[in-house]
Amino acid sequence: MGSIIEEARQSAKVNGLTKMEPLTDDEQAVRDIRKLLVDICRQNGGGHGGGAIGMAPLAVALWKKTMRYNPANANWFDRDRLVLSNGHSAILLYTMLHITGYPHMTMEELKLYANAKMPDPVTKKWKATICHGHPEIEIPGVEVTTGPLGQGIANAVGLAIASKQHAALFNKPRYEVTLSRIYCITGDGCLQEGVAQEALAIAGHLGLDNLIVCYDNNGVTCDGPLDWIVSDDTNAKLRAMGWNVIDVSNGDISIDPIVAALELAKSHKKQPTFINIKTTIGYGTSTAGTFKSHHGTYSDEDATLYADPDVVDTHTLSTRTKSYFKSAVEQGRQLEEKWNLLLSEYKKSCPQEAEALQSRLDGTLDGIEDFLLSMNIGDKGVSQATRQYNGAIFNQMMDRVPNLMAGGADLWNSNQMGDQGHRIFDRNHYNGRVIRYGIREHAMASISNGIAAYAAGVRMGALSNLQVIHVATHDSIGEGQNGPTHQPVELDSLYRAMPNLQYIRPATGEEVVGAWLLALQSRNQPTIISLARDPPTVATRGTNRECVLRGGYTILDVENPVVTLVSSGSELQFTFAAAKKLITEAGIPTRVVSMPCISVFEQQTISYQDEVLSSSPHIISVEAYVSSMWARFCTASIAMDSYGYSGSGIGNFTRFGFDSDSIFEKVQKHVKAKPTRRWQLLK
Amino acid sequence: MGSIIEEARQSAKVNGLTKMEPLTDDEQAVRDIRKLLVDICRQNGGGHGGGAIGMAPLAVALWKKTMRYNPANANWFDRDRLVLSNGHSAILLYTMLHITGYPHMTMEELKLYANAKMPDPVTKKWKATICHGHPEIEIPGVEVTTGPLGQGIANAVGLAIASKQHAALFNKPRYEVTLSRIYCITGDGCLQEGVAQEALAIAGHLGLDNLIVCYDNNGVTCDGPLDWIVSDDTNAKLRAMGWNVIDVSNGDISIDPIVAALELAKSHKKQPTFINIKTTIGYGTSTAGTFKSHHGTYSDEDATLYADPDVVDTHTLSTRTKSYFKSAVEQGRQLEEKWNLLLSEYKKSCPQEAEALQSRLDGTLDGIEDFLLSMNIGDKGVSQATRQYNGAIFNQMMDRVPNLMAGGADLWNSNQMGDQGHRIFDRNHYNGRVIRYGIREHAMASISNGIAAYAAGVRMGALSNLQVIHVATHDSIGEGQNGPTHQPVELDSLYRAMPNLQYIRPATGEEVVGAWLLALQSRNQPTIISLARDPPTVATRGTNRECVLRGGYTILDVENPVVTLVSSGSELQFTFAAAKKLITEAGIPTRVVSMPCISVFEQQTISYQDEVLSSSPHIISVEAYVSSMWARFCTASIAMDSYGYSGSGIGNFTRFGFDSDSIFEKVQKHVKAKPTRRWQLLK
Repeated sequence: MGSIIEEARQSAKVNGLTKMEPLTDDEQAVRDIRKLLVDICRQNGGGHGGGAIGMAPLAVALWKKTMRYNPANANWFDRDRLVLSNGHSAILLYTMLHITGYPHMTMEELKLYANAKMPDPVTKKWKATICHGHPEIEIPGVEVTTGPLGQGIANAVGLAIASKQHAALFNKPRYEVTLSRIYCITGDGCLQEGVAQEALAIAGHLGLDNLIVCYDNNGVTCDGPLDWIVSDDTNAKLRAMGWNVIDVSNGDISIDPIVAALELAKSHKKQPTFINIKTTIGYGTSTAGTFKSHHGTYSDEDATLYADPDVVDTHTLSTRTKSYFKSAVEQGRQLEEKWNLLLSEYKKSCPQEAEALQSRLDGTLDGIEDFLLSMNIGDKGVSQATRQYNGAIFNQMMDRVPNLMAGGADLWNSNQMGDQGHRIFDRNHYNGRVIRYGIREHAMASISNGIAAYAAGVRMGALSNLQVIHVATHDSIGEGQNGPTHQPVELDSLYRAMPNLQYIRPATGEEVVGAWLLALQSRNQPTIISLARDPPTVATRGTNRECVLRGGYTILDVENPVVTLVSSGSELQFTFAAAKKLITEAGIPTRVVSMPCISVFEQQTISYQDEVLSSSPHIISVEAYVSSMWARFCTASIAMDSYGYSGSGIGNFTRFGFDSDSIFEKVQKHVKAKPTRRWQLLK
Repeated sequence: MGSIIEEARQSAKVNGLTKMEPLTDDEQAVRDIRKLLVDICRQNGGGHGGGAIGMAPLAVALWKKTMRYNPANANWFDRDRLVLSNGHSAILLYTMLHITGYPHMTMEELKLYANAKMPDPVTKKWKATICHGHPEIEIPGVEVTTGPLGQGIANAVGLAIASKQHAALFNKPRYEVTLSRIYCITGDGCLQEGVAQEALAIAGHLGLDNLIVCYDNNGVTCDGPLDWIVSDDTNAKLRAMGWNVIDVSNGDISIDPIVAALELAKSHKKQPTFINIKTTIGYGTSTAGTFKSHHGTYSDEDATLYADPDVVDTHTLSTRTKSYFKSAVEQGRQLEEKWNLLLSEYKKSCPQEAEALQSRLDGTLDGIEDFLLSMNIGDKGVSQATRQYNGAIFNQMMDRVPNLMAGGADLWNSNQMGDQGHRIFDRNHYNGRVIRYGIREHAMASISNGIAAYAAGVRMGALSNLQVIHVATHDSIGEGQNGPTHQPVELDSLYRAMPNLQYIRPATGEEVVGAWLLALQSRNQPTIISLARDPPTVATRGTNRECVLRGGYTILDVENPVVTLVSSGSELQFTFAAAKKLITEAGIPTRVVSMPCISVFEQQTISYQDEVLSSSPHIISVEAYVSSMWARFCTASIAMDSYGYSGSGIGNFTRFGFDSDSIFEKVQKHVKAKPTRRWQLLK
């Protein structure tokens, strides 16, 4: 280990990055960036500096010599997108946004990186930082929120798919309105993650030649050398997945080979490119080449290593580097101006395409609400499974909403999504709208986020706030035949707890339409629509698409109610039937509430919530999931407390006591028992 | 497509599997198996028959010519293990267990496959099936529960790791007490999944030459041909991950090339082997070679295709096949008898090793409870983070418990697990006990299940019931620096809803010891211990390791309480301080309950639960997660309702209102407001 460090340090000295002789502009820039990174990591006793320091030449190659962007307008549409999949190196991204002149990314902001510990002692206000520990999409210049390793690669694949489709739909001879490429920086960590391997395989399969992944191959992880945990021939693996692979044997000092590799990659057709760049983590510092550099502090000696004799203060860039990057702002202005000119020519020559493009940029969903409100789906209460209704609704929407993209993980047939062969997006049809993701569910979710991020404008909020609609089928134990390994009984608890996610469990065709209304109206959040595999066997009356927009609503009301039953999804049918039986056979006045979306219900006024839920002494939820959120509203629950079973179809509901007779008996018994406990699971 | 089917049908006819001429014993067996599979899929209008029919020759090659097993004792320790990663083909496994003479797997049971729809109309009892939709570990002969695609490959890697370690520890010259190999069958679906790619990379890295993966390469998925979604050069990819690759170009008819490939694989050293076997899904049937064969019914013509003129009934095997497989029982008996003899010799020659081996077989955790109960960890209330205590406890346990295996995903240093270099399990040290999993978290979890399954005996229960202890660090928003992408606020909701999983969130060093006690005592379920990154800043008194075994307990009691505060993890310290302030400064009698494990608390007697939680009008939970389960017990919650923030260390607790002053104020205000709502989130 010692020799690696020494070699790196000597190499730094010999090769001029710490020497005092005249440096080229690029060398000076790399040196200044490294100095600034050391200063930032020292300001708060830590940060992920090692990777960032190692990647400084790559950063100069990308931001100075390769990428098209406009610092004055981070959201200029035809910019190249950069995804930092090794997101812990975020400080490199912030530093480059600062150096290239993004106005919000001031040196004061960089000083707040990993430094927003406690509120201001005087004002008592919390400091807001834009230099988050990992990149967050709401910061201009950050394309996607890359958190857990590996997902950034999938996000980048999503952006590349969106850009490819955009180019295929809108580029015309002499009017190349989409030139945007996607650059992704990854470390070894991302490449080990399954989600990345899934995404890399899809990208190769689709031949996305607008995607360039730069691998910061520093051979070191958090715990030690990479060869402790990886024996892959990474290049061979990428080639086997259909990628073009380029090696850069030394990415520590000169940016020239990196620039050349990037140029080569840009010219390569029909394959995405993987550039494998050998670097040294924490290059030149006292912990260079070792795991200690990954996340830690730098010594006083490290602080002086890259210091310029003319510059005494920390957190400063030399005048030369400042002026070297000054052109970025002007270049960016010109790029956008040129593009705007092209666009106005395009509007004249290709007015129809220009209108469609504008609709895409605006994210218009023309009249979709009226369409959904008036759609006749022939829901007669007992007829089709919610996933069948969904297929029919989806097909009509695909005809109607050109901006809708979709995809499935090898369950297109089984989910009855209809024949979409004519709409397939593949390497021969980049103008398609339906993506065959293969059996790669995790990548599907992360790629969808990338696609949604492509056309999104400025985004605000806690995390990404991207409008991705996940259609989940095989809901609960109703997925009988595949057995308990395939029957979620706990996932609703996760989804309902996830901030800013809408989890909707519609019961009928009416409510599936309502779910889509809600999902499409919610422009700044993802939605999961959870659909059942089997048709209902009992008629439910009173569900209503518009009421879904309130999260929960009464479908059966009575005077002086003793019990309110709250349910969702497939179980609503049995609940409804049980309520009627409770009224007629047991003389227990029973109301029924359909609650397809708890989080939306909780956003309603207190008086509305009370009107729906607080008029009876007993409020009992009926749902074939483990009961978690329901105790917020309910005095008892009929719920799962085990895994499911290899039954068939609707029979599992009876097996686990969700049929109307079982509900009837449990509720009757419970009411008679005059329970005193705060909440109870009814068995 | 038509031509593929026709080709397969013609090939079947030409090559003698449907012909009437004399067949070899193997051919007859393959034919009988295919006939039985068609019959089983017809009995209930469906099932996953296509893959199973295609793999019939592979099955005969494995069960007749390759694997070592004893039908009379499915748990004979030194058996070869088979993992069906494409678990939807479960009926093939059940059929082979039947044919080879596992006594429980009768023809009557096979008839219940996918046929346990509704209760018996007469007895009203539900039929129990042992032929679940996907393999389940509690059925003798099933090694692991392979559910979602890809995980079975990881389970197999875990079994291979365990077997390698076993051989390294216990095999002696002339006493090869462990010969067990791991066979895994996979389809293309598993290979697309990220978790499988993670696991394959680890297996190659570790050089597990006792692992043989057989790829049923039928080129078809649920939705259509495989080339719609996969362009990988699968063999090249596996080679790049360090695997030995063998091709079998036709696996449809003769078992000979498959047997030869398996023999080759067994002789190959220092690499795991991947056998790529070209097959035809639903071979010979009317839907052969197409996606329609994956999951569906078979026609009347299909039913006669493999029928023997002598055999009129469905669900029958020819006398010839029955007698061909009769030897399996006798062979198995001899294998186990020989092994038992070897073991008794071993006990004489290597008594110490034999004792250690026996302890391993029994799963003994010698005196670990007393050890943990008496362990001095120097917990003074304010000193170390729970993850630091955990590191110290873990190191002592590794010294003490030789049967403990462990591993980490590149956070060994960061989680302060101590220097375990001397215990590393790698290709040069198969006797090691600490696995470097790399940055492959999903595979780590699934491989751990495989390791746990290796030594487990007969297992009963709902799902796998394997004792795997997951130590999760970077708990909640206390993981400040990495920002909200790395701060779970919703995961506890998932874990707490997952049946048969223990989720423990200890607050102090005392409770970390208690968490290990609970985890080690719970022999039939997995546990997650969630640990904090930062040391407490406020002293908490009254936590107790033994009380953790009751899930929740009172740590501060008062007379005539008005408020009970319930908390866990890092927030307990602030809650405790807030309670003291509420008593002294606001005159509100306040109790404090520490609740490290909700599910265990719910298993206590009602009177104990009431004693801990029901003596005050206000019961308020304090936890920096989204509140889900708490409403079961509480009238209000101080909880997260958003994602976290890139703060630093303990500061995030203050930012989000979990410091003692904020708790004090929220509780005081709430009590004064005389709330009437059932449950409320305090802001």
